[in-house]
Amino acid sequence: MRTDPRTLDELPTPSLVVERSLFDANVAAMAAAWPGSSLRPHVKAFKSSAIARILAAAGHEGFCAATVREMEGLAAAGLGHDLLLANEVLDASRLGRLVDAGHRVTVAVDSDATVAAAAAGGVREVLVDVNVGLARCGCDPSDAGRLADTARAAGLEVRGVMGYEGHLMMVDADAKAAGVKASMELLIQAHSEVGGDVVSGGGTGTFAVNRWVTELQAGSYCLLDTDYARLDSPFEIAVSVLATVISVTGGRWAVADAGLKAFGMDHGPPSWPGGEVMFVSDEHTTLLDPDRTLAVGDRVRLLPGHLDPTVARHQCFWVVDGDDVIDRWPIDLRHW
Amino acid sequence: MRTDPRTLDELPTPSLVVERSLFDANVAAMAAAWPGSSLRPHVKAFKSSAIARILAAAGHEGFCAATVREMEGLAAAGLGHDLLLANEVLDASRLGRLVDAGHRVTVAVDSDATVAAAAAGGVREVLVDVNVGLARCGCDPSDAGRLADTARAAGLEVRGVMGYEGHLMMVDADAKAAGVKASMELLIQAHSEVGGDVVSGGGTGTFAVNRWVTELQAGSYCLLDTDYARLDSPFEIAVSVLATVISVTGGRWAVADAGLKAFGMDHGPPSWPGGEVMFVSDEHTTLLDPDRTLAVGDRVRLLPGHLDPTVARHQCFWVVDGDDVIDRWPIDLRHW
Repeated sequence: MRTDPRTLDELPTPSLVVERSLFDANVAAMAAAWPGSSLRPHVKAFKSSAIARILAAAGHEGFCAATVREMEGLAAAGLGHDLLLANEVLDASRLGRLVDAGHRVTVAVDSDATVAAAAAGGVREVLVDVNVGLARCGCDPSDAGRLADTARAAGLEVRGVMGYEGHLMMVDADAKAAGVKASMELLIQAHSEVGGDVVSGGGTGTFAVNRWVTELQAGSYCLLDTDYARLDSPFEIAVSVLATVISVTGGRWAVADAGLKAFGMDHGPPSWPGGEVMFVSDEHTTLLDPDRTLAVGDRVRLLPGHLDPTVARHQCFWVVDGDDVIDRWPIDLRHW
Repeated sequence: MRTDPRTLDELPTPSLVVERSLFDANVAAMAAAWPGSSLRPHVKAFKSSAIARILAAAGHEGFCAATVREMEGLAAAGLGHDLLLANEVLDASRLGRLVDAGHRVTVAVDSDATVAAAAAGGVREVLVDVNVGLARCGCDPSDAGRLADTARAAGLEVRGVMGYEGHLMMVDADAKAAGVKASMELLIQAHSEVGGDVVSGGGTGTFAVNRWVTELQAGSYCLLDTDYARLDSPFEIAVSVLATVISVTGGRWAVADAGLKAFGMDHGPPSWPGGEVMFVSDEHTTLLDPDRTLAVGDRVRLLPGHLDPTVARHQCFWVVDGDDVIDRWPIDLRHW
């Protein structure tokens, strides 16, 4: 029954909208700094094989994923040239099936158990995940060499190391430069004991200062969010949630029809460029509007505080050039 | 390739798990207080027509929804006996199609524009949504009578009023009793000017003290969350996110494979009954584990802070009786 929307006004709400010109500028800015295979785009940020295809066409043919489902979706989209699951798994059987189907699959390991799982599941290549300061996964740097030996003894090819300095993405510039250097020195020391030709790490928040990795794992830069926009960078926010004002009965506020189910809220509520957000409920965002600038039926664009969990709530991106809807990118890498 | 899991250990992670006995006890406790049609279950909390069917079998045959998609899904599941969209819409054409297909559809209106939209879309019945203190939708109580007249002049049947005292769900008992009384007196006064036989409102947080509505709009009570569990009520948390420990390399912490994409975070991070949650990332929850109680491969259950936006991130509930998986309820009412 629904025909394809041709303009912003015809889009259903809430809708996730991408401004194509800003997206393209972000992609170009990152490709200038990290060209070709020096960038391994992290699909967890956008969960769309349509975006991955654009990045592959821009020269970045290897991808990084956080879930097995993302790996499977990339392979199904014909992007299985060199896929890295930058996360530990205890059941690698679905990854093994990708290997059997001819895709190149590498998985992170940080323990004997995850090495054993990779081998048992039929994965052939691993990176040793090294803890470089974030309280999450990754082996102790001093254990990396031993773990590489264990992996090789289990018949696995050890391609090198990875280490994510996620605790440094949002710190100020001086602390970031010093922190990344210290983290990456741990990674480089581990690499010297592990071997292989890959040193993988970094992200949108450290792309300008991480000089140590052979490949950068960044994905948020394509679309950004209000949190990353606080950093000094060439990237701009290219994504928003389009919503319709459905009620202005309160006088001092207006209610838009996008809420908790349209946003990741771990970085706080979305931002409204026209003023302040009062609060967010399941299907509503209440906007402070003391001057009554909004009327019922108006469209507003709300900017997500955190891109990745916001994207994961939507089924597609609507791609626009100004007021024209020019494309629809399915968010096909969701769930697990 | 995947066979149906029969036990908790066989479930993939992350998975949303419902303990059937606790769910049944919650349903029974609410049905004792609000039997039959005095309860209009709000499906936004669980977004599953399988759960709605169980509630209909328990005597609650009319449902309340927050989105057009929820209305469509309930109708498709054969539950279109009496559906209320407790929210304003400016395009009611999809609702009109449900009416044409023989389902009973009522929609909330709070302005001339939403009255006109209901009539234009082919909806025949409305409730006048009255603001009873929450800074969201609902007309001024003094405008309710006029709006009802406008609706009737547009050919709509006005079934009565609704008003949601959402600002009072989590306040302490004394303030709640006084607040609900004041809010509902506004609603009853509006009702006297609107007419009709429906006074709809309330929720899980006010089910015990709201004596004014003819039908209670509650849904969270079925499954609950850690926020609602702070209230003194007969309801218990029947839902959790099952996760696998994938890394304990840090010594003082353990990492489980459920993160921001498995939880609504607006009420804060999930709770871990075994200890403290340090932080949550896209696909990880880092658990403080100084005594090293967790090993790689262990399963943990994480309790959501806010049910509704957590459920909306998952494709199904896995229903368990202790360690046995006894059913799978699709979360089929997601998106818009």
